[in-house]
Amino acid sequence: MPTQIPNSRVMPRFAGLVTFGRYPRVADVSPADRPLDWVFYGVPFDGGVTYRPGARFGPRAIREESQYLKPYSMAHRVNVCEQLSLADAGDAPVSPYSAPETARSVAEYATDLPDPATARLLALGGDHSVAYANIRATWERRGRPPDGLALIHFDSHLDTVDSVWGEKWGHASVFIRAIEDGLVDPGRMISIGVKGPLNSAADTDFARRHGVTMVTRDELENSGPATIRAFVDGLGGAPAYVTFDVDVVDPAFAPGTGTPSVGGISSADALTLVRSLRGLNVAGADVVEVLPDRDHAGITALLAAHVAFEIVCLSCP
Amino acid sequence: MPTQIPNSRVMPRFAGLVTFGRYPRVADVSPADRPLDWVFYGVPFDGGVTYRPGARFGPRAIREESQYLKPYSMAHRVNVCEQLSLADAGDAPVSPYSAPETARSVAEYATDLPDPATARLLALGGDHSVAYANIRATWERRGRPPDGLALIHFDSHLDTVDSVWGEKWGHASVFIRAIEDGLVDPGRMISIGVKGPLNSAADTDFARRHGVTMVTRDELENSGPATIRAFVDGLGGAPAYVTFDVDVVDPAFAPGTGTPSVGGISSADALTLVRSLRGLNVAGADVVEVLPDRDHAGITALLAAHVAFEIVCLSCP
Amino acid sequence: MPTQIPNSRVMPRFAGLVTFGRYPRVADVSPADRPLDWVFYGVPFDGGVTYRPGARFGPRAIREESQYLKPYSMAHRVNVCEQLSLADAGDAPVSPYSAPETARSVAEYATDLPDPATARLLALGGDHSVAYANIRATWERRGRPPDGLALIHFDSHLDTVDSVWGEKWGHASVFIRAIEDGLVDPGRMISIGVKGPLNSAADTDFARRHGVTMVTRDELENSGPATIRAFVDGLGGAPAYVTFDVDVVDPAFAPGTGTPSVGGISSADALTLVRSLRGLNVAGADVVEVLPDRDHAGITALLAAHVAFEIVCLSCP
Amino acid sequence: MPTQIPNSRVMPRFAGLVTFGRYPRVADVSPADRPLDWVFYGVPFDGGVTYRPGARFGPRAIREESQYLKPYSMAHRVNVCEQLSLADAGDAPVSPYSAPETARSVAEYATDLPDPATARLLALGGDHSVAYANIRATWERRGRPPDGLALIHFDSHLDTVDSVWGEKWGHASVFIRAIEDGLVDPGRMISIGVKGPLNSAADTDFARRHGVTMVTRDELENSGPATIRAFVDGLGGAPAYVTFDVDVVDPAFAPGTGTPSVGGISSADALTLVRSLRGLNVAGADVVEVLPDRDHAGITALLAAHVAFEIVCLSCP
Amino acid sequence: MPTQIPNSRVMPRFAGLVTFGRYPRVADVSPADRPLDWVFYGVPFDGGVTYRPGARFGPRAIREESQYLKPYSMAHRVNVCEQLSLADAGDAPVSPYSAPETARSVAEYATDLPDPATARLLALGGDHSVAYANIRATWERRGRPPDGLALIHFDSHLDTVDSVWGEKWGHASVFIRAIEDGLVDPGRMISIGVKGPLNSAADTDFARRHGVTMVTRDELENSGPATIRAFVDGLGGAPAYVTFDVDVVDPAFAPGTGTPSVGGISSADALTLVRSLRGLNVAGADVVEVLPDRDHAGITALLAAHVAFEIVCLSCP
Amino acid sequence: MPTQIPNSRVMPRFAGLVTFGRYPRVADVSPADRPLDWVFYGVPFDGGVTYRPGARFGPRAIREESQYLKPYSMAHRVNVCEQLSLADAGDAPVSPYSAPETARSVAEYATDLPDPATARLLALGGDHSVAYANIRATWERRGRPPDGLALIHFDSHLDTVDSVWGEKWGHASVFIRAIEDGLVDPGRMISIGVKGPLNSAADTDFARRHGVTMVTRDELENSGPATIRAFVDGLGGAPAYVTFDVDVVDPAFAPGTGTPSVGGISSADALTLVRSLRGLNVAGADVVEVLPDRDHAGITALLAAHVAFEIVCLSCP
Repeated sequence: MPTQIPNSRVMPRFAGLVTFGRYPRVADVSPADRPLDWVFYGVPFDGGVTYRPGARFGPRAIREESQYLKPYSMAHRVNVCEQLSLADAGDAPVSPYSAPETARSVAEYATDLPDPATARLLALGGDHSVAYANIRATWERRGRPPDGLALIHFDSHLDTVDSVWGEKWGHASVFIRAIEDGLVDPGRMISIGVKGPLNSAADTDFARRHGVTMVTRDELENSGPATIRAFVDGLGGAPAYVTFDVDVVDPAFAPGTGTPSVGGISSADALTLVRSLRGLNVAGADVVEVLPDRDHAGITALLAAHVAFEIVCLSCP
Repeated sequence: MPTQIPNSRVMPRFAGLVTFGRYPRVADVSPADRPLDWVFYGVPFDGGVTYRPGARFGPRAIREESQYLKPYSMAHRVNVCEQLSLADAGDAPVSPYSAPETARSVAEYATDLPDPATARLLALGGDHSVAYANIRATWERRGRPPDGLALIHFDSHLDTVDSVWGEKWGHASVFIRAIEDGLVDPGRMISIGVKGPLNSAADTDFARRHGVTMVTRDELENSGPATIRAFVDGLGGAPAYVTFDVDVVDPAFAPGTGTPSVGGISSADALTLVRSLRGLNVAGADVVEVLPDRDHAGITALLAAHVAFEIVCLSCP
Repeated sequence: MPTQIPNSRVMPRFAGLVTFGRYPRVADVSPADRPLDWVFYGVPFDGGVTYRPGARFGPRAIREESQYLKPYSMAHRVNVCEQLSLADAGDAPVSPYSAPETARSVAEYATDLPDPATARLLALGGDHSVAYANIRATWERRGRPPDGLALIHFDSHLDTVDSVWGEKWGHASVFIRAIEDGLVDPGRMISIGVKGPLNSAADTDFARRHGVTMVTRDELENSGPATIRAFVDGLGGAPAYVTFDVDVVDPAFAPGTGTPSVGGISSADALTLVRSLRGLNVAGADVVEVLPDRDHAGITALLAAHVAFEIVCLSCP
Repeated sequence: MPTQIPNSRVMPRFAGLVTFGRYPRVADVSPADRPLDWVFYGVPFDGGVTYRPGARFGPRAIREESQYLKPYSMAHRVNVCEQLSLADAGDAPVSPYSAPETARSVAEYATDLPDPATARLLALGGDHSVAYANIRATWERRGRPPDGLALIHFDSHLDTVDSVWGEKWGHASVFIRAIEDGLVDPGRMISIGVKGPLNSAADTDFARRHGVTMVTRDELENSGPATIRAFVDGLGGAPAYVTFDVDVVDPAFAPGTGTPSVGGISSADALTLVRSLRGLNVAGADVVEVLPDRDHAGITALLAAHVAFEIVCLSCP
Repeated sequence: MPTQIPNSRVMPRFAGLVTFGRYPRVADVSPADRPLDWVFYGVPFDGGVTYRPGARFGPRAIREESQYLKPYSMAHRVNVCEQLSLADAGDAPVSPYSAPETARSVAEYATDLPDPATARLLALGGDHSVAYANIRATWERRGRPPDGLALIHFDSHLDTVDSVWGEKWGHASVFIRAIEDGLVDPGRMISIGVKGPLNSAADTDFARRHGVTMVTRDELENSGPATIRAFVDGLGGAPAYVTFDVDVVDPAFAPGTGTPSVGGISSADALTLVRSLRGLNVAGADVVEVLPDRDHAGITALLAAHVAFEIVCLSCP
Repeated sequence: MPTQIPNSRVMPRFAGLVTFGRYPRVADVSPADRPLDWVFYGVPFDGGVTYRPGARFGPRAIREESQYLKPYSMAHRVNVCEQLSLADAGDAPVSPYSAPETARSVAEYATDLPDPATARLLALGGDHSVAYANIRATWERRGRPPDGLALIHFDSHLDTVDSVWGEKWGHASVFIRAIEDGLVDPGRMISIGVKGPLNSAADTDFARRHGVTMVTRDELENSGPATIRAFVDGLGGAPAYVTFDVDVVDPAFAPGTGTPSVGGISSADALTLVRSLRGLNVAGADVVEVLPDRDHAGITALLAAHVAFEIVCLSCP
């Protein structure tokens, strides 16, 4: 039986100890509701940022705003509470002063989360550097596929800078590390929403050289959706990881983020794009870069919670 | 002669005791400017909310931001100050602890506002539960049309939940009550901008069963405008009430609201939709769910004031 | 063995699912750590307010800021984690639309919380109307002392208005109800920090007539501390309940509250006053009226968490 | 009969068109309630500032927060609603681009406000430059006393700079102008709360040379209160004007102001100081320099409203 | 050699004394990097506003957010740091109390900025009244072209009111003054994004009478882009000045502005429109009306910085 | 001749590129104004925090608010601009991902700042870990006194935790490192304002064992000032370093900080305490832990700027 959430007409959404989406803690799930389909967990780490820190408080903010999530998707005509067992594992262990050490401990923690055969992992960031750990854990739990995972990457930035200030594990380098380590197949990676200005023309070199498909923010108005559709179809059901950096969305919709990028897509565009992945074999996911101290009215965290919901919906049968 | 507003090149918009749009108080309108075409009034009540309260301060915030309203509509090429007598009646009496008692006292107060033969009522919320009272007063002043009023409903939510926490008069139930009491004809009701996620698939049952026309947020990108146009044309001039919940607009444009819904339309879309009702026989209206404490820079209240202006413009000859 | 909190040098304070002070959930306390000395629980209810609502989000905000609580009191030279078993029970069931129904359900819930022989109850508000329920539960768990409980009341307001807008269970009436029902002995009640302006001279009549000791905000600069000391000494160890409304503190220190009162004491004064109760036989307590939407930088919730900590310290042997 | 305010247990404080303290508009006062004892009016002008503008929105913000004023003073044991007829005249005409022109038009407007024989004027700023006009109007209505008025001046700054950027009518020059024009007697002027740092040692020259009594912020901790008492006693009942710049209070208590001064007194200190003027023959007053855009949670405007109330209380028989 | 910016992988973007875009101060540019192609300077003046002031702090806010600018434009495939010498001259001298005096001193200052033969001027506002001075300086440096400059004007308002409150140099009158003085050729002026409501139908008279091309906000959805393209092509390389008022963008994207206009375009639209000017012979520019006190998360200032960048890109060979 | 600041009656305080207190950049100081007495510089680093990050933006915020500093101290009757040559060196080089590496590079940079024989260093944080580097540089420039420097430490915390999360260079460990390395003499170190709650009773062990004088926050109300006076007198003119963590002040006065501590002193208390050091031989100083994203109305940064001013005043002859 799928895990259930409290009836909001008995226990109001503003009541109760907070877990993501009001789903049970993993430790509280009864055996009857096992195995799990998704495990949510937070990674309160922002030691990988290159500009404004504060995303270490992102998991709490996303959980807080997620209290207003509802389970029935009009777009997919599916009620996740009727289909999926979902639970919140709490937060992964982090080393606030060390990105590589955090990557190691989070990956280890996430790999060992329950029900590896069925439970996909959804990490709540934290800065984008935390994606490496969740990708690695997903890859481990999938039996270390030799070709790596496919990757659907929503972001204003490519995050393929080799290192910044001598650190190879920061949030701008995360996909270089994942590709180097064989966790992600760059030939089956798509970066959606990329836009300038960039530091230099060379910023896109790594992606181009390794065959990453790039859908710029401008292309989203034209050929982008078709490119994405073709990309998903071309995966042929291969397991794919979805990573969503909220800065792909314009600062008006996501003010609470550390490296905001002017001229982004809208929240509605973002939800539509995620829904357009329908058919994807989602193996794991993350939603990252929510910075609560800049997030007036909590709209960025609320968006992040809904993006996570949309990703989960993709896995409904 | 229509009522006039102070010349802002003499009395700046940031000066003077505040009334909606700087229109005179009803008590101050000279006989020469009577009868009135619209009466604005506030309903400082949020005892019907299911999530975040605070809309009791909405009328004040909308009036404050409405100081920047100007009277000439470029879209309709009409100056409301040359066409219509408008006035602000102040706030209706409310019972902060009781939604049904408030519904009763507001309806009674609004029914008795002056110039019933000519003056349409525009209520400034407050939570959406206040719409019932203004609809009832409009219906009374129109001579209790046996078929009820047509209803144009802008909202992310259907607001047709029978009751919440044992209360049948909350903001999620307002249209069930209005339909049950014959004030609204569900066959001539259209809900525009509805979107998920919902609590369950059954959430739309009432609307579907009673023949409410539903234009989802996604349909607004495609068939929606045509559906709305056809709906308005189909009314054949029957009196119609317009109810506008600011949460139909995305949280980026309307952060100051109690149950924000991610992925909404833009402010520009909202204004365009209201303008597209041109030809409607507007019998009354409300703009609701403005929550000032979350409304950075007052942008939600400013939007609400402009939506009210656009609705008023619809009634220009 | 007392319950423990995570080591913040392993699990940072910004990590983990949130409970008050990072203490375990009641359900997670091992038998070895029982019986409990205090149970914290939230009452997410603001249906009793007479002005600005929003305190229903108070329990979450207090818990969030309480992550930065530490267990060793320099003032009392005591480490609560070495002395007391503490746990968080989550939130009580509320009826958002009904203050009397909420009073009933919360009282029932709290009465039944575990370890009644040892565990004092500390309620996190919510508006001040929630105090009634926690006082009742405390009184029940103490075996219904016929004389009622003594009451130490920190507040800018007396909260002894018989009813407002026809409601006898609102936040301005809470102590009239508690006295009427024999839960509180007005002869052993002290209201600390009361100040004007008041609605009328008659506002203090009830308190004076029933022998409530009143220490006005101005008296706190002079005779107040001695009065309080004498009052506590005069109780002779009788069980006393402490109720702390954050609006006793000046809006500079507690901006996040619904009926702020200019000219209040400072946070430092508040902590000193609570500490000055040393020797009191604390039977239960609440900290109420935290309104997060007005609480820039979370300073009101942080204060509330520390006041709760100081009250708990009073019960250390 | 004194003017009355709505019963807040019928018409909640968050309801109704806004006037200062919920007192009637001057135009609405019935003859039976005349003559008036005080007239409140706003001066939405900030064209005299030397640093951060925005106080033109001060009158609205003060009125908004003044809805929570209550009429009974515990300190003075007096209910202003039983003693005084009070009303709000709205806002004075201003010339946003010209401080001298505004001084002229405001003075003219204020001089002509009703009931000059009895009604004192309380101006709500606006920047401190507006004090000149209200002082002049008060002086005119008092029959142009040849010695000028006594002046009680609360401020962190002396506001006796001759001119700034070529303008002699800005907020830093207001008392030089009033003294030059014979409206204020510098020998009977006291500046309370003055503190550094200053632009130069010469900044206090004008005040010293003209015999202004200066009570520095540091002296308030010691000899200040006695100096003030002696000053008031020394006036022997001569008419005195009270001008209160909210920046005399520390930025923690009054963040919403344009030239905040670190290390100020508290709100409680400010109220106590105003109350200590008991016995003063108050001829008029102003409360100025409230800047709403910086005023989180409205605490500065709330303070300003209470200061105005305390000043009014001084005039109770 | 073009001027360079610090390497952000050595000197982080959050480090260092602030200049626009991290470009050198004019005084620090080495002769080898001369002549300059653009000089940025601020005009901290808001004495011309008709509603909400505060834009005097705009230059600082734009510079602060501009630290996150990067030099490579994906849209134009050009790195401005490889093509252009850019520098920040600091702020122009202003007279805070006088718009005409400020216009004079700023024009004089800007005219004398270095390298008039090559260096275009980009003024950071400040309210829109500052545009006059920069247009005049640009016209002077271009040798006083007898036909005046062409003007590309992004704004929700036409800014062609003759005078307000007796002042002919305020922000609503700036283009009337520029046209009257022959600095701008109205026949080669285009106002993009204009929208209502207006004060009256006559508000557009001046523009229509003088042959200004007007592209309303609604036309931008349809014929607008083609009209703009035709306009630019029609200029035949004549020097054109670009003036960008951030209120052309919706308040969701630009909350920090003094006269926000509901229903505006998005940030993405704005960037696209500026880029669509490709081929324009840009002679100078300004970005104005950023009001930091209302600008949560700095998103308006960040947008302004990027608009400035896009304008500069237009001048790349 | 001392360095001068712009005349604010010519160049308004809101104009010009920002440097601390409007003092010249070090590079711009003319030889005639050398040697310098103080050099200000920023350390935009927060990689040493244990809770909330963001202080990397502290130097910019302090500089911004410091524009309102004035040079004449009423308390000391001294004009720093007549006595001292002051300049801003910009920001030190930091390694955002490494506290020890930052400590090294900042110390090296600061040691090499000009005029070591005369110029004291005042570092603007940044988190408290940056104090180590400035203390080291001060010690180096003083010729490495074998006994180390005396230390006056204002803070709610002792910052003598050996390491956190395996890092010995974080903000909680800064004085252990300075003492271990012989830079600070613990026998001549005083920690002022320390308060609980603490993690454990052992938190004060290091300080007690090494003879650090501790003046708790409670002692400041009584014996503290005398203790401080005696401490300063006891130094006999030995060079002393002043380190000021803004969290020594209550969150009402300093909301913008990462580890706020409830019940702190006021801003006025803080200024008085610094002034009470009169006679100290100040060798260097820092003001740290300003976190702008939580700092409504900039009051924390404004306080920090004034504390820096007060420290500088101590060095006036």
